[in-house]
Amino acid sequence: MQVTQLNWLSASDAARALRDGAISSEQLVEACLARVRQVDANVQAWAFLDPEHALAQARALDERRKEGAPQGALHGVPVGVKDIIDTHDMPTEDGTVLHAGRMPADDATVVSRLRAAGAVIMGKTVTTELATYAPGKTRNPHDAGHTPGGSSSGSAAAVAAGMIPAALGSQTNGSVIRPAAYCGVYGFKPTHGLISRHGVLRLSRTLDQLGVFARSIEDLALVCEQAVGYDEHDTDTFPPRARTPFSEIASQEPPLPPRIAFVKTPIWDETEPETREAFEELTGQLGDRVQEFTLPENAREALDWHRTIMEAEMAAGLVAEYEKGADKLSESLRGQLERGRRITALEYQIALARIPQLIAGMSRLFDGFDAILTPAAAGTAPHGLQSTGSPAFCTLWTLCGMPALNLPLMQGSNGLPLGAQLVGARHDDARLLRTARWLAAQIEAD
Amino acid sequence: MQVTQLNWLSASDAARALRDGAISSEQLVEACLARVRQVDANVQAWAFLDPEHALAQARALDERRKEGAPQGALHGVPVGVKDIIDTHDMPTEDGTVLHAGRMPADDATVVSRLRAAGAVIMGKTVTTELATYAPGKTRNPHDAGHTPGGSSSGSAAAVAAGMIPAALGSQTNGSVIRPAAYCGVYGFKPTHGLISRHGVLRLSRTLDQLGVFARSIEDLALVCEQAVGYDEHDTDTFPPRARTPFSEIASQEPPLPPRIAFVKTPIWDETEPETREAFEELTGQLGDRVQEFTLPENAREALDWHRTIMEAEMAAGLVAEYEKGADKLSESLRGQLERGRRITALEYQIALARIPQLIAGMSRLFDGFDAILTPAAAGTAPHGLQSTGSPAFCTLWTLCGMPALNLPLMQGSNGLPLGAQLVGARHDDARLLRTARWLAAQIEAD
Repeated sequence: MQVTQLNWLSASDAARALRDGAISSEQLVEACLARVRQVDANVQAWAFLDPEHALAQARALDERRKEGAPQGALHGVPVGVKDIIDTHDMPTEDGTVLHAGRMPADDATVVSRLRAAGAVIMGKTVTTELATYAPGKTRNPHDAGHTPGGSSSGSAAAVAAGMIPAALGSQTNGSVIRPAAYCGVYGFKPTHGLISRHGVLRLSRTLDQLGVFARSIEDLALVCEQAVGYDEHDTDTFPPRARTPFSEIASQEPPLPPRIAFVKTPIWDETEPETREAFEELTGQLGDRVQEFTLPENAREALDWHRTIMEAEMAAGLVAEYEKGADKLSESLRGQLERGRRITALEYQIALARIPQLIAGMSRLFDGFDAILTPAAAGTAPHGLQSTGSPAFCTLWTLCGMPALNLPLMQGSNGLPLGAQLVGARHDDARLLRTARWLAAQIEAD
Repeated sequence: MQVTQLNWLSASDAARALRDGAISSEQLVEACLARVRQVDANVQAWAFLDPEHALAQARALDERRKEGAPQGALHGVPVGVKDIIDTHDMPTEDGTVLHAGRMPADDATVVSRLRAAGAVIMGKTVTTELATYAPGKTRNPHDAGHTPGGSSSGSAAAVAAGMIPAALGSQTNGSVIRPAAYCGVYGFKPTHGLISRHGVLRLSRTLDQLGVFARSIEDLALVCEQAVGYDEHDTDTFPPRARTPFSEIASQEPPLPPRIAFVKTPIWDETEPETREAFEELTGQLGDRVQEFTLPENAREALDWHRTIMEAEMAAGLVAEYEKGADKLSESLRGQLERGRRITALEYQIALARIPQLIAGMSRLFDGFDAILTPAAAGTAPHGLQSTGSPAFCTLWTLCGMPALNLPLMQGSNGLPLGAQLVGARHDDARLLRTARWLAAQIEAD
């Protein structure tokens, strides 16, 4: 195996090679760092990256392996972490000058979990301003004139550009699925409550959800299986129970060919013409396994309920930033916070009360279907770096806390990736990964 | 055993006598109904009571016993239910003309649980208007010129007057502890999340908590053990786990003499002089087992946070009543709802965020003490029926969701009951019952 190619190994292949002693973590991390040196001047995916610190972690893990110490599922595998997720050994600056130099004392729960599984925390990836809309410095690795999407811009771009096999991101609206689609990688946001948000910048308790970027479905399952779990510090995580074998289930053949609901969503007219054509072709390939499904009319209102909840909760989550440093915030974020401060508790609670109603309506859909197929975004990554694109095709699923996955299976006429989003029933995360693997195989075989 | 005296049996003694075949449920219910005929023209504890329906339930349970069917812990024991808790076989009118004639299709979860344990649902007890401040028709059974307290007025008065051995009530501020204190019965509001509120009028998800009235601690434990449990329809209930043996723990001697923190609360100056004297005497009796403890200064602010949360959540919970029937509401409730509608989502969320901070502060107190001793109310039941008295001595514990219990151990100079409140650590409900039994024994022995 050539060291210069190791950076393109999947996390699963790398973990196997490390376990077998075919490569060392130091070699793997060095290959990733070489790739960073090669492309990151252009991509700019990193908010913080100390090569020596990454290599020191790798060497310590290699040492433990040589000593015969027990090895976790990610032993020696480098992972990138969005710069809103706390790390005790690196700054976490949340994409704002207001938090410049911020050094958390502790790892976020999800970072502790990945470290316990043996991961090398490679560095911190660029986020938009406080994980909202104002872009960071990152560019799309497929064409630097295009946005990588946001807010998990650096995580998506670094995985797409081969600088790391996997990365953590977060989604309050469309911040995992959209950048995964624009950068052409797999992105997975599990059911709300699966991954603890303790030690992560809080915008919205109701909507914030962590997710994973990788270059294969197998890798999404591998990382997720380590990342999920109950945490007493995040009371929205699910109570202790047996660990779901994501990797095992994701690798199985579905017992029956899955049934897919093609959902155009109430904002289908916002898609670009070539997105519509691409989905026509895709559903054609799937034949009788796919059937169009029209959401109830209140799905359109869901965008308003989402905005009410997000802006009201952001106003509380970022109250210190607004009151002490409003002049250091972007105009768009200041506008969101000002709208959020004017929302009444009554409007906010009425919007919150819609969520269980929406979920109940959705769960009926899953009586007849295994997953929803729908666009990940209106089209390919928009030109220009002043916006990260629209998250609107993710909003409904985020609001309902449903698991969602980007499949990087298509391409626009400009050569940029075009994503298909697959959405599953709440708590049916492993099955969604299995269905996604089946779907990807159908397309690739065609 | 004389039938005319059966109405004064405790629930535990009645359950034992029923199990042994010494009495029938029909005899017991008939004795309770005789007591109703004797005193209820004066007390007016019932919103709905159909003697024939109560007797029919009793006869059916007697029949099942004769057939040798398995018997629950409350088999044949009559229980009163506050008229905001749904019953499929009786109206539930919530103390407002707006809900006159309301007939729920299903039992509330807690009613199902008591029925499953064999209880006779005797009837529906009077609540104040929508479980808020405007009084119902009930009078204090010790002196009809005085309020019974509220909002669980009928439950407290019916138990105190010997019309039933036990009853269900609810507390959003001080609606279990205060009427229990004014009427001179035991009242217990367990930790938030122990008893499901599915099928109960919702004022405030954060604050609404169900509780039990009885004439002994043994009875509180008996009824609670049947009432508590996880309910998927109330997502604030705790996940499935082994049932707590309330009765068994409550009946044990504490392994060491408990240490009691005497807490005057930041509103001690609102107590009546004889309340202060009574607590001086009480703490004197307890000697070195009690120590005064001063709460942190933010405990005073907790009254404001509670009001913000309660009024904001009531505005959402009662939005239909306000929008369709504001003219049918009392002026005090209309005022609460109008204040609630003006609260911003930001103020509401800031108040909510204080609760875990307060709880963390309180939990340190329990490193050194088993329970908090504090007044249940400013004094004995106020004269007049136009107000149900102040809940302020309960507010802090309700806000923190801590278990609280009224001990009817003292008396005012007017001969009316004067309550002592015992408050425990969250989730330490059974220990609180055990400590309360120990405390009652100290006082009675003295």
